[in-house]
Amino acid sequence: MTEYFTIRWENGIVQMLDQRMLPEKVVYHDYSKCSEVAHAISEMVIRGAPALGVAAAYGLALTAYHSQTSRVSDLKEELLQSAAELQNSRPTAVNLFTAIERIMGIAQHFSGMEVMQLRGEVIHEAMKIAEEDRKMNLKIAQYGQQFIPDQANLIHHCNTGALATASIGTALGVIILAHNRGKKIHVFVDETRPRLQGARLTAWELKQLGIPQTVIVDGASGYVMENNRIDACLVGCDRIAANGDVANKIGTYNLALVAYAHGVPFYSVGPVTSIDLSIKDGNEIPIEQRPDDEVAFINERAIIPDGVKVFNPAFDVTPAKYISAIITDRGVAFPPYQTSLYKLKNG
Amino acid sequence: MTEYFTIRWENGIVQMLDQRMLPEKVVYHDYSKCSEVAHAISEMVIRGAPALGVAAAYGLALTAYHSQTSRVSDLKEELLQSAAELQNSRPTAVNLFTAIERIMGIAQHFSGMEVMQLRGEVIHEAMKIAEEDRKMNLKIAQYGQQFIPDQANLIHHCNTGALATASIGTALGVIILAHNRGKKIHVFVDETRPRLQGARLTAWELKQLGIPQTVIVDGASGYVMENNRIDACLVGCDRIAANGDVANKIGTYNLALVAYAHGVPFYSVGPVTSIDLSIKDGNEIPIEQRPDDEVAFINERAIIPDGVKVFNPAFDVTPAKYISAIITDRGVAFPPYQTSLYKLKNG
Repeated sequence: MTEYFTIRWENGIVQMLDQRMLPEKVVYHDYSKCSEVAHAISEMVIRGAPALGVAAAYGLALTAYHSQTSRVSDLKEELLQSAAELQNSRPTAVNLFTAIERIMGIAQHFSGMEVMQLRGEVIHEAMKIAEEDRKMNLKIAQYGQQFIPDQANLIHHCNTGALATASIGTALGVIILAHNRGKKIHVFVDETRPRLQGARLTAWELKQLGIPQTVIVDGASGYVMENNRIDACLVGCDRIAANGDVANKIGTYNLALVAYAHGVPFYSVGPVTSIDLSIKDGNEIPIEQRPDDEVAFINERAIIPDGVKVFNPAFDVTPAKYISAIITDRGVAFPPYQTSLYKLKNG
Repeated sequence: MTEYFTIRWENGIVQMLDQRMLPEKVVYHDYSKCSEVAHAISEMVIRGAPALGVAAAYGLALTAYHSQTSRVSDLKEELLQSAAELQNSRPTAVNLFTAIERIMGIAQHFSGMEVMQLRGEVIHEAMKIAEEDRKMNLKIAQYGQQFIPDQANLIHHCNTGALATASIGTALGVIILAHNRGKKIHVFVDETRPRLQGARLTAWELKQLGIPQTVIVDGASGYVMENNRIDACLVGCDRIAANGDVANKIGTYNLALVAYAHGVPFYSVGPVTSIDLSIKDGNEIPIEQRPDDEVAFINERAIIPDGVKVFNPAFDVTPAKYISAIITDRGVAFPPYQTSLYKLKNG
């Protein structure tokens, strides 16, 4: 569906796009060992929680694919060692651990004698994890179509595309599908300080796909809405509370307030797995504080005087009242979210 | 009042802080010729409209100070040549041309025979221009004090300090005077993309003065207001329309909308000369569009894929309804601005 890919499995080789080099260089790496995949994860060749889950699954599949042993117990041992390498690659992305657990569960419960069978099951499960990610993305994109008119002029924040998943992405997936279905789309791309995922990654993806776009600084969205017809803002979501408050990349809340003041619809887009009904409202969502250097340095050079304090929350919380709808892979939730999210999650 | 200075005259030497090197290096240059000052202006050693006016005035004062001629007509010729150099230094800053006109008016109307007298008058006028800037800044700062409580927690956008003027600045001047009077102040500094005047210049100024501060990305102001007690936002102004709409650095409007949503007072700060009663409302204020590269490159390296479009308005317009008060050197205007601004300007 896209003319590039984040991660791909082909005949015992895992290929990854090196995201550290974007947008300056497009470089794909080939890996045939799980330890290489683990290293690529820790060096941030690949990033984005869903993409990391797929990478871990493919890493274990590599171990199964290339194993030379004829004994099931030896293969289990090899898989355990690979799992440990992957678990040490990055500490926080839950998808990574979920994928490892799923595959290791299969290995642990395997009671057959045929090593070829276990190898096949491990590889199969890895493919399944990738396929689920692909389907989830596509469903989200399909449910989102109703909100994207032809000739749509949109604002998008951060990166929610193929680079963060193993498919077309979440909020960006909605945009990409609309474009692929022949709608004329134009996207204003928030550059998304501090890490510039909009400028570096989203702009790169849209360019590859030939989707018309214009990059703006995050502070320019008010000017853009005041002077242009904007049909919608589309953003991802990292965690959705039971009342519809949504945690997402820092700057999302500002964009939502600006959209609200202009009567522009504001959509949060993500999988049902992001809905956390155990969390009552946004106040209970823990917000990661990231290192000062993400703000203080750009391209390894300081933009702030030495010793000056920085405050760098990675996410903010947009209250439910500013969100027009939440688009998921199981359908769309509208206000009041208390009931609509519960139905989506449990229906 | 400050422990650094943007530009200073001392015994026939003009000293300037090289702003291009901030915040990495603090370098002052000495100039004894007007041509050197003109070159420094064109190379952007100094910037900020009020500061450029003072620089041009000092440039002509250097010509008068160091002139070797004993004939009035020769000195007038030398001044004409210096004025031409300054006029070619930068094309748009109106203060630069106003300062040149004031001093050249004195030279043109001088009908005496004593070259020493003309030299004195030119130097005196230059000092007067600098002194007026200083007084204007101080009056603004004094009128602003009523809005700054002790223990104030503030948000400031862009740079409005000593570096943009020849004194303590406008919005930042209010903050600096509050600090100097012993109020405990903390400032959240918007980094102010794309040119990062907040991160590079305001943070540097506050650091020199020992005023507690924290730098944030522009998109984090909503998170900050949601999670901290913020007493006020203070910003500069480039042009004020008759109805109180204010043009200022891009990102100001977003900050105003975020402040409004949180009930945080929002103050525009600038000299009465920024009020333009000939302009009915913000729609009539022309907005400068700046080169793409200001957004696309940071520290000479691209952050956006080659060939991707950028939209880079230098300013935005904040509608009067989001502005709690406009602080000037002749007093404070409150809503309804239609009448209060007229009174300030003509009273």
